[in-house]
Amino acid sequence: MRYFVSFSYDGSCFSGFQRQEGLKTVQGVFEDALSSLEGSLVTISASGRTDKGVHAKGQCAHFDLSKNVTTYGLKKYLNRSFEGEIYISSVFIVDDKFHARYNVKTKVYSYYINMGEFNPMMRNYIYQYGEKLDVSLMKEAASYLIGEHDFRSFASFSNDKDNCVRIIKSIDFKVKDNVLKITFVGNGFLRKMIRNIVILFIGVGSGIYEPSYIKEILDKKKRDGNLKCAPSCGLYLEKVNY
Amino acid sequence: MRYFVSFSYDGSCFSGFQRQEGLKTVQGVFEDALSSLEGSLVTISASGRTDKGVHAKGQCAHFDLSKNVTTYGLKKYLNRSFEGEIYISSVFIVDDKFHARYNVKTKVYSYYINMGEFNPMMRNYIYQYGEKLDVSLMKEAASYLIGEHDFRSFASFSNDKDNCVRIIKSIDFKVKDNVLKITFVGNGFLRKMIRNIVILFIGVGSGIYEPSYIKEILDKKKRDGNLKCAPSCGLYLEKVNY
Repeated sequence: MRYFVSFSYDGSCFSGFQRQEGLKTVQGVFEDALSSLEGSLVTISASGRTDKGVHAKGQCAHFDLSKNVTTYGLKKYLNRSFEGEIYISSVFIVDDKFHARYNVKTKVYSYYINMGEFNPMMRNYIYQYGEKLDVSLMKEAASYLIGEHDFRSFASFSNDKDNCVRIIKSIDFKVKDNVLKITFVGNGFLRKMIRNIVILFIGVGSGIYEPSYIKEILDKKKRDGNLKCAPSCGLYLEKVNY
Repeated sequence: MRYFVSFSYDGSCFSGFQRQEGLKTVQGVFEDALSSLEGSLVTISASGRTDKGVHAKGQCAHFDLSKNVTTYGLKKYLNRSFEGEIYISSVFIVDDKFHARYNVKTKVYSYYINMGEFNPMMRNYIYQYGEKLDVSLMKEAASYLIGEHDFRSFASFSNDKDNCVRIIKSIDFKVKDNVLKITFVGNGFLRKMIRNIVILFIGVGSGIYEPSYIKEILDKKKRDGNLKCAPSCGLYLEKVNY
């Protein structure tokens, strides 16, 4: 039986998503819980990985169980195992051909930046930037990225053979209580691509770069090894659309 | 020189406010940083304690230093020491007679309840109740508590000699994105008083108790040892007014 789950997790509790020997990861904790239910090794296929410290509100995955477990019982069992660090919001039984990664249509990510005073409670959940940003300049910078582009300039690393063409459908900016939320919708994102873009947006919003500098970098089609990326704590996988 | 500071802290990082041998507490971390600056033991006087797990957005304290430190330098030094778990938002030099506890006029506390789906990111910062509450019934219950009363029914423990008379000036309810924020303003609150009140409000809002049950308990002037209190993670000391 193939199960499809949507779930959230607190990235600050894990050494990233992907299973790694000797480290506490989302995949590891998830698979350990399923494996002890099944009595043998169960692996999960997620919509994609998230890096260390990145959170998820709507990550999705599928896995197969031979045991006949109700979706209600499975949700209850998993949420009890996860002790609040991962939370299963829904479980469905799906067709054997459904695949949580290959069937992704679009993904939604948000990046949160606190432009106000440092907030100790939110230090692992919102990037504590602490300065006003000019959002209209950032919007202009973002406009250069909309559409289908070769985004290799924003990849964490790449070689000439990688396919780095992706479609960004929209980039939205919202400010509430001094917190800037930047929401990206696209058909897929390269590793660290959003955090690499966000750090440049911050450069634009703080007056360091002209908005058009983003287009220059995009057109270079080459990663500048000197650029840092924005901290992982501000990034959330919000939703996966199938 | 007497310094007055206002500061926030993440209660989930500490075993409460009050200094305790062998435990990491807000007061302990704060005093250790000041003492190593001063070269001798420095003690701080806060507006009051907060219990383990309770957060603060606007805690206040005073302390005396013999060293002549600028307010700017002191803020910078302390915030570097605290590594984000405590954050000093302002430092003032005040008169030697000013006292952070005795001069308190009113205190503002808020309690946050998530009535929506469990949120792993906020599990230590908002009580994850997970069910809708009838806020109008809770408001009715709250109305019985406004004004000057002997609140010993809501104290964590009390003996007949304790003065448990306090004035609650207002209790406000606000709902945003399924999160209920209950804000208490008063001239002072007994230990665990707010969390003991909030758990009863939740009982009222979920239909277990009539709103008037709050008045019955208030009038008993005796703590019912069987009652639990609401979890500490939802409570914030928002502000101290002098």
